[in-house]
Amino acid sequence: MQNVEKISLVGAGLVGSLMAIYLAKRGYKVDIYERREDMRKGGAEGGRSINLALSNRGLLPLEEVGLGEAAKKMVIPMRGRMMHDNKGYLTFQPYGRLGQAINSISRGGLNELLMNEAEKLGVNIHFNHSCLGINFDKNLLFFDVNGKRIEKNADVIIGSDGAFSVVRRLMQRTDRFNYSQYYIEHGYKELSIPPAANNGFKIEKNALHIWPRGNYMLIALPNLDGSFTCTLFFPFNGQPSFDTLQTRSDVEEFFKKVFPDAYELMPTLTDDFQTNPTSSLVTVKCHPWVKKRTLIIGDASHAIVPFYGQGMNSGFEDCRILNALLDQHHDDWDVVLKKFNDSRKPDADAISDLALQNFIEMRDLVADKEFLLRKKIEAKLHDLYPEQWIPLYSMVTFNENIRYSEAMEIGKRQKEIMDEVMKTPNIEKKWEKLDFKSIAEKLKV
Amino acid sequence: MQNVEKISLVGAGLVGSLMAIYLAKRGYKVDIYERREDMRKGGAEGGRSINLALSNRGLLPLEEVGLGEAAKKMVIPMRGRMMHDNKGYLTFQPYGRLGQAINSISRGGLNELLMNEAEKLGVNIHFNHSCLGINFDKNLLFFDVNGKRIEKNADVIIGSDGAFSVVRRLMQRTDRFNYSQYYIEHGYKELSIPPAANNGFKIEKNALHIWPRGNYMLIALPNLDGSFTCTLFFPFNGQPSFDTLQTRSDVEEFFKKVFPDAYELMPTLTDDFQTNPTSSLVTVKCHPWVKKRTLIIGDASHAIVPFYGQGMNSGFEDCRILNALLDQHHDDWDVVLKKFNDSRKPDADAISDLALQNFIEMRDLVADKEFLLRKKIEAKLHDLYPEQWIPLYSMVTFNENIRYSEAMEIGKRQKEIMDEVMKTPNIEKKWEKLDFKSIAEKLKV
Repeated sequence: MQNVEKISLVGAGLVGSLMAIYLAKRGYKVDIYERREDMRKGGAEGGRSINLALSNRGLLPLEEVGLGEAAKKMVIPMRGRMMHDNKGYLTFQPYGRLGQAINSISRGGLNELLMNEAEKLGVNIHFNHSCLGINFDKNLLFFDVNGKRIEKNADVIIGSDGAFSVVRRLMQRTDRFNYSQYYIEHGYKELSIPPAANNGFKIEKNALHIWPRGNYMLIALPNLDGSFTCTLFFPFNGQPSFDTLQTRSDVEEFFKKVFPDAYELMPTLTDDFQTNPTSSLVTVKCHPWVKKRTLIIGDASHAIVPFYGQGMNSGFEDCRILNALLDQHHDDWDVVLKKFNDSRKPDADAISDLALQNFIEMRDLVADKEFLLRKKIEAKLHDLYPEQWIPLYSMVTFNENIRYSEAMEIGKRQKEIMDEVMKTPNIEKKWEKLDFKSIAEKLKV
Repeated sequence: MQNVEKISLVGAGLVGSLMAIYLAKRGYKVDIYERREDMRKGGAEGGRSINLALSNRGLLPLEEVGLGEAAKKMVIPMRGRMMHDNKGYLTFQPYGRLGQAINSISRGGLNELLMNEAEKLGVNIHFNHSCLGINFDKNLLFFDVNGKRIEKNADVIIGSDGAFSVVRRLMQRTDRFNYSQYYIEHGYKELSIPPAANNGFKIEKNALHIWPRGNYMLIALPNLDGSFTCTLFFPFNGQPSFDTLQTRSDVEEFFKKVFPDAYELMPTLTDDFQTNPTSSLVTVKCHPWVKKRTLIIGDASHAIVPFYGQGMNSGFEDCRILNALLDQHHDDWDVVLKKFNDSRKPDADAISDLALQNFIEMRDLVADKEFLLRKKIEAKLHDLYPEQWIPLYSMVTFNENIRYSEAMEIGKRQKEIMDEVMKTPNIEKKWEKLDFKSIAEKLKV
């Protein structure tokens, strides 16, 4: 490949901004072309979640580029799930071991931090640039800027333009591009719990709240101002569904009955419900991610459902891995693009499948007695043999040194072992007397 | 739905033209908008197969619209597979029972027949109309006609614009459209065996010729002029592959060694190999097929690989089924679109999967002894119990009253039963003494 000096990214979201920082630090001349206006000038973000769960895989890259401390100041640690049953009773399930937590963080706040840092490092962010086309052979980009068509060139092009990526759509028109987009039967709608007096929190601050209801659920993540952003994951059709909650009184009655304690905390519920959009949830898989000298990363190449809290984290990990490959191969982009394309794909597929599976866990199993007992036994295994038996959730969330694909494989074997363990007669009474050592050792084989 | 009078189709290929005939016969005002020039004026067809295998599912609709006899005059029946081993020795495997055959037919000739008939019935075919966009809510179509943008409206829009459908691509941008496109590792290239003297045939006329070679194969279908159109299905990469056959002598040596008898019959082999395009093979699945009053049919909604010879046949069956639903529901398009969308999908999925599986059968298993014995036993079962045990290939190819999805399910059960039968010790010697009655009866359960 010709000498690479100039790199253009399409999309100044979380992943594009972080990637730009990595590349600027390596000495490249970096431009980002962003379809939207500069969000720092007070533009609204339509239809996307307001806060996100930052976990280890996302934190490590932020630390690598020197933004770890700044990010940590913006987060609220969530140490476990707080389950709300339909009488309003609470149960707490820690996510991992003592001190382990996932972190609620504002999408907008983090994006601003990243854009500011990128600009500080010399990255040019060009707003209101809508990508119209790419000439993959000649490495040319075409944009619409206020109705005018302009052309740009770069040595490498990176599409970081999200789940509905234009760069990916352009790749899709080229030959032999494998692609799938699948929507689940559920959509989501954001709602809100306001702060208590003096920016206090009306419910437990350091938890991710879940109202699991079998086929659907409500969740809530804390914000720094004391409010919670709630998300209802709910079927589009059927009984009950977005389709059946039409009038204000439909909504009120439903929430009063099904989420009684949440209902009491949401004074603007019916307005929010009628005003806020109902959004769909898509899984995108595709391959190859590289066409000549154009690469797609993050949601553009592997959009996933949000139920493992790994969308942003996996995108940030893409950046870290691409940077590590550049280190390893001395910025030989031919090699790096090929290696990234081949080696990262199984991990993207794994987290994609795990995220779909986790929806069932969150909306249903977390309220299931046998499931909770399993979790308890696994937690005990983890306590006794912390290196040998790491529960799947912990591997994904707290162990950034384990690849997603590896975590999924180990998780499958753990499940087989635990299926056997759960067949023990009277397990609910006798579980503490299990032979934990031999259980943990089964995993080694 | 408002009264439907005017229907527009996008794409005047085989399926679009046949659908237009059905609709014109029902009394609708029908327009077809076609991107290409009128092929009847001598334009070339780039990159698409020259002849196709017409079987019962395709013949029935042609008969329904009164073109059965005309089509039959254009075909060469192929009663079975003629296998060529690498020494040039031949083995013949009949496709079905006596008199059953699939029919080699010219794509161009059949398309012309259909377009002529459509025009005779008052259908307007507008050539050089490239679809740019659709307003699904307002039922508007936008076309580029020699650089000019024009707008058309219709009460119902049908996209019959093939595997790379623009109508489908426009649907893909709307919310909650599930979509996948997957390419296999093989591509194909068309080659040719010229006629013998006086339009004679250099190899058996009434057969589909196969040179099965494990991971790849060559096939040949007869044309009315005595020639055969050959297709090499071959990996893009690896050893051997399109990638490794670069020079004229690479090609010559490879064919001489691997397809010695075919090599002798192809005087223009190396020229053809270097001139003709290498095309890829895609499977497209998507759903829903209906967006408001726009529907996609044929390859546009379910492009499949060619290994079951059912691409055109399944598209023609789409037309027949849509027409039958219009009969049944008295042209109530709201009901018909919904029923077609829901009920036809499992059949499209089934033939899609069967076509992928059949590649392995054609390129590899047809040369396998155990496989041939299985076929023999199944043929005998079919002879003895013609209604009770119909081999999968026959269900798909000769039994248009059995749905694809049903055929696939029955085929799975047949396979389980045959797996057991094949475990019989010394089956190769004792197969004629099997208890065929009880084998056939297992299928009923």
